[in-house]
Amino acid sequence: MDIADLREDVYWANMELQSRGLVLYTWGNASGIDRKKGIVAIKPSGMAYEELKPELIVLVDLSGKVLEGDLKPSSDTPTHIELYKAFPEIGGVVHTHSAHATAWAQAMEPIPCFGTTHADHFNGEVPVTQALTDVEIAADYEAATGRSIVRAFRDKGKDYRAVPAVLCANHGPFTWGETPDKAVYTAVVLEEVARIALMTRAISPDCAPVKDKLLEKHFQRKHGPNAYYGQGGEHA
Amino acid sequence: MDIADLREDVYWANMELQSRGLVLYTWGNASGIDRKKGIVAIKPSGMAYEELKPELIVLVDLSGKVLEGDLKPSSDTPTHIELYKAFPEIGGVVHTHSAHATAWAQAMEPIPCFGTTHADHFNGEVPVTQALTDVEIAADYEAATGRSIVRAFRDKGKDYRAVPAVLCANHGPFTWGETPDKAVYTAVVLEEVARIALMTRAISPDCAPVKDKLLEKHFQRKHGPNAYYGQGGEHA
Amino acid sequence: MDIADLREDVYWANMELQSRGLVLYTWGNASGIDRKKGIVAIKPSGMAYEELKPELIVLVDLSGKVLEGDLKPSSDTPTHIELYKAFPEIGGVVHTHSAHATAWAQAMEPIPCFGTTHADHFNGEVPVTQALTDVEIAADYEAATGRSIVRAFRDKGKDYRAVPAVLCANHGPFTWGETPDKAVYTAVVLEEVARIALMTRAISPDCAPVKDKLLEKHFQRKHGPNAYYGQGGEHA
Amino acid sequence: MDIADLREDVYWANMELQSRGLVLYTWGNASGIDRKKGIVAIKPSGMAYEELKPELIVLVDLSGKVLEGDLKPSSDTPTHIELYKAFPEIGGVVHTHSAHATAWAQAMEPIPCFGTTHADHFNGEVPVTQALTDVEIAADYEAATGRSIVRAFRDKGKDYRAVPAVLCANHGPFTWGETPDKAVYTAVVLEEVARIALMTRAISPDCAPVKDKLLEKHFQRKHGPNAYYGQGGEHA
Repeated sequence: MDIADLREDVYWANMELQSRGLVLYTWGNASGIDRKKGIVAIKPSGMAYEELKPELIVLVDLSGKVLEGDLKPSSDTPTHIELYKAFPEIGGVVHTHSAHATAWAQAMEPIPCFGTTHADHFNGEVPVTQALTDVEIAADYEAATGRSIVRAFRDKGKDYRAVPAVLCANHGPFTWGETPDKAVYTAVVLEEVARIALMTRAISPDCAPVKDKLLEKHFQRKHGPNAYYGQGGEHA
Repeated sequence: MDIADLREDVYWANMELQSRGLVLYTWGNASGIDRKKGIVAIKPSGMAYEELKPELIVLVDLSGKVLEGDLKPSSDTPTHIELYKAFPEIGGVVHTHSAHATAWAQAMEPIPCFGTTHADHFNGEVPVTQALTDVEIAADYEAATGRSIVRAFRDKGKDYRAVPAVLCANHGPFTWGETPDKAVYTAVVLEEVARIALMTRAISPDCAPVKDKLLEKHFQRKHGPNAYYGQGGEHA
Repeated sequence: MDIADLREDVYWANMELQSRGLVLYTWGNASGIDRKKGIVAIKPSGMAYEELKPELIVLVDLSGKVLEGDLKPSSDTPTHIELYKAFPEIGGVVHTHSAHATAWAQAMEPIPCFGTTHADHFNGEVPVTQALTDVEIAADYEAATGRSIVRAFRDKGKDYRAVPAVLCANHGPFTWGETPDKAVYTAVVLEEVARIALMTRAISPDCAPVKDKLLEKHFQRKHGPNAYYGQGGEHA
Repeated sequence: MDIADLREDVYWANMELQSRGLVLYTWGNASGIDRKKGIVAIKPSGMAYEELKPELIVLVDLSGKVLEGDLKPSSDTPTHIELYKAFPEIGGVVHTHSAHATAWAQAMEPIPCFGTTHADHFNGEVPVTQALTDVEIAADYEAATGRSIVRAFRDKGKDYRAVPAVLCANHGPFTWGETPDKAVYTAVVLEEVARIALMTRAISPDCAPVKDKLLEKHFQRKHGPNAYYGQGGEHA
């Protein structure tokens, strides 16, 4: 892939975060990676979406070094990089403070799988990380955030491909996917799933998650080797 | 009715699901039936609303066989078909994951009739189905979903014409009506009724449903033989 | 006032109900009265706002008789008429099923005055009527609804000018004012006040209403003989 | 700064309150100050945003005396003036009745710092004032409101620069900043933070605030001497 194409993809992914209503002001960022070249393209820090252009997308290597240009990358860049390093099959990462997903993250509770809307996209609950230690906060906060995500998946035996989202404790959601565009799609889905889950709890505070058979059925319907949802295209 | 007209009606019903804000991405579908020809017209599986055109609406017979074209019908088609077979007076079916109705479905609670907004459209609570058994999930999940709806109405002695909506446990709502357009109208109403009911519960957790006399009065005002609401036209 | 002007005012009041997001489909109506002529102008029953025109506004006398034209007036007309008869200083009435106000009406709880947003417009809690008896429901439901409103104000010693709104039990809100436009303004305010009150309760379930001094201060600031809010104009 | 520029800034700040959805009708106001000249520019009382123009912005001195023109300043002007007098580094003040922040104010509870969205902008909980005494309400209500804000910060040892927002008990939020535009930004942020906090509580009623280390980290990341968020520009 051409770097100009990567920048273009990352630009559009960031713009869609805004047009889908997931970000207020500059509170979100999307990135993409060129695995062969080892280059991550990401939104510049604190830049208004109205001023963003493809050529302003910042390029960094996997150590976080800026490869080109004067703009600083998103302050969350070290978190994105940790995810790219630990999750080899992903090509895009998104971070937002979308309201309902952030509420679950602040409450430090995983989002239970209450129904098929959730099961169609996430194969089980969306996990929440453990709060960072004081040392982690002080030393390299953003990279430590990324490592806490990786640890949450490892400790719970979760497959990052089957559950492409996480809630960072006291913070907000990260999502990922094969491309920046798919990571955005998952961020939008996560916000809606978080919203419906919050209302489900309001109606029935003791509501139990769906049983495993239903979870498995819906996830496989869309994602398994015998998937039969859609025409085989994007987001099908 | 001409099949081209049926496709056109089903196309517009699907488009209205989106313009009314009931669907995110491809999460919903509307169908219609030509009872004489035994043909059901339904949205193609996983297709974005932006790409939909009347000629892409898929035609299937009542066994689910595609009659024409290359596109796969909605994966929920067997559910629609079960409803057409069991409810002889309906001409349209709609399925969505609209947030508030889905929250009640996930909570596995019927929507109580808390007021006249509900009573104007549904003659009593909107029922929730029983969760499917593991065997049903494994064997023919979507048709089993349809049969669980029919069973819910039969077991509770409910008339599908007086309560043209259901919540599928852990899943979401289905609505129906004489035409695809009316099924869409009922899907929109159901979402608003579900929203107000959720807030009613939040204010008064032990709120009781309306008494039978009021229920009857409002339903008959709009739907009974002596209905006196409206000018006699559509959605009056 | 010319009858054409009255119709025009009532037309615009109805249209604003829709543009302000208070009504779904045809679920609301506004009326106005010419006190000298004894003529009430009101929305036709069940008519879509898109089809409404000033000349379609129905004229009735205070017995409910249609004075002109073929269209049926809103089925809620007898409620409006009861209010015009009992509240001599009002010139407009509005009924909606706006979601938050309707939730309080369904919960059969008055909206407590939790703050100045409320106190600026309503001099104390917004009352809820008592549920109608079976006889009232069966006999002349809509007029009985109006009488239940009048009774609620009389029994609680409330001044309809100081609290220009009510919640009909299990039903929804009615508001009124000197003109149809002011009744619409109050319907919009009531919905927002109901929304904030619901959230106030969610944060603090035992929250008490504001004390009388604050209630009085804010109401008088806008409405008393020494009002000092605004420039003296409309909605100031 | 030229007074025409101050009026222009205050005009745009008021207009943004509306375009950001923070005000219904006339329920909000923004002001700015020229510290050298001792002139405060503020929205006229009760004026619709549609009718507002820069030249209609009212100029008052720090005793509240109108310096020019026929329009009355916002009835909240004495509150703004108290803040300008007590908080020497602020250049703009905003008051709204934005729904979620107002709900916390009505519940008379501070907004706890539940996460980084909050910590990025407010260095700790957003405080709520004590209810005014009957004497304060009767005598000089609006100035007393301002003094109650100043008192809340003094009594709790809070720095108005680190927490540029307050909830007035039973009333609603005030925010401030170096410029009118920054006060508006903080009003928008406060409403979103209030919304997410309300939902956090709904998910986990006993949720604790974030620990001090995280609070400090996030606040310093954006505001400290070694801030590394953004490109150094506005709202970065």
